[in-house]
Amino acid sequence: MKIVALLSGGMDSTTALYWAKKKYENVIAITFDYGQKNSKEIEFAKWHADKLKIEHRIIKFNLKEMVRSALLNEDIPIPKEEERGRIPQTYVPFRNGIFLAIAGGIAEDVGADAIVGGWNQVDYSGYPDCRREFLDAMERAINLGTIREGSDSYIRIESPLINMKKSEIIKLGLSLGVDYKHTLSCYEGKVPPCGECPSCRLRKKAWEELGIDDPIFK
Amino acid sequence: MKIVALLSGGMDSTTALYWAKKKYENVIAITFDYGQKNSKEIEFAKWHADKLKIEHRIIKFNLKEMVRSALLNEDIPIPKEEERGRIPQTYVPFRNGIFLAIAGGIAEDVGADAIVGGWNQVDYSGYPDCRREFLDAMERAINLGTIREGSDSYIRIESPLINMKKSEIIKLGLSLGVDYKHTLSCYEGKVPPCGECPSCRLRKKAWEELGIDDPIFK
Repeated sequence: MKIVALLSGGMDSTTALYWAKKKYENVIAITFDYGQKNSKEIEFAKWHADKLKIEHRIIKFNLKEMVRSALLNEDIPIPKEEERGRIPQTYVPFRNGIFLAIAGGIAEDVGADAIVGGWNQVDYSGYPDCRREFLDAMERAINLGTIREGSDSYIRIESPLINMKKSEIIKLGLSLGVDYKHTLSCYEGKVPPCGECPSCRLRKKAWEELGIDDPIFK
Repeated sequence: MKIVALLSGGMDSTTALYWAKKKYENVIAITFDYGQKNSKEIEFAKWHADKLKIEHRIIKFNLKEMVRSALLNEDIPIPKEEERGRIPQTYVPFRNGIFLAIAGGIAEDVGADAIVGGWNQVDYSGYPDCRREFLDAMERAINLGTIREGSDSYIRIESPLINMKKSEIIKLGLSLGVDYKHTLSCYEGKVPPCGECPSCRLRKKAWEELGIDDPIFK
């Protein structure tokens, strides 16, 4: 079993990586260096891949040339709070679709059986490309659009965290030995985190629910 | 109606672009500069976008870092003939999936109603990502994975050439005023073309069927 794991360096994808590494032996981690403001997360991704002693590919391309978002463009500030019922300004158009398509090409190229990622539809704050329904559609597209010599094997998209609350994800990760000190959630890319952006707030709430101090502040 | 048209600079996508421009007013052409050996086709793409006076975006990213193919990697030669029943060496893993995902992001970002391209399943020589069934799956994934503020509009993938023979595509293009002198098919990227690679052979056969001289040799 060969697995391609999408690793951003945030809490979710890091947890999914440890989950994949425990379940499967042969895991290749893929991180996208796509011009995100919080590029510090790439260093964290590398830290975990090194710790797990797995192959780590960093794929560089400039998403900013393609689409606009507060997570990418300096002239769009990251909001303190997202407006309910509106598209979050931090939404990057079809980001997960683009990442999954590239992962599909890599999975085909290396002969992987599955793509694993930290997608989560509970705390997804309005991002449509985090829903399992979307992942199912991408899985179908990847399998219709790829071929593997002498093989009828299918490339699955596995989303172990899809229905978990943020606090449940942390609990799982702690049981798998994830050191969350080396994960970044802050949209501003700050270490220590700004504590005020929507992603920081979500993270803070989850650790409070667990009654544990978030190690990133240590 | 706003349209995102994928334009490689080959015969098919150029024909599809002229088709789109005739049918719809507002067309944005997208060309990928992805490290292909035949990068000359990008100049041809630009020539047609200029001629039609439409916006042209050239998106640069290095597909070579992601996947391997004879079309990308210098150490893999382009074969004179593809072996039947085998995956062509010129196949780029999930290339159309990656291109369509990026086009989906752009379509969402600019508020386009459709993505148009020159995909063709008749002469597709074993590339799975040129079939309509695959395009349907990508269309579904794009629409599940994107959102548009205050809109329930759907992003269609239009493939006007999907069931045409190469010679029929040329006939359509000639009726739309396409000057095929400015299109590149050669996998080697040669102008004048090598005449021997599988893509040159296919092109040659089509012009011969029509009984017309291919203007690229003029």
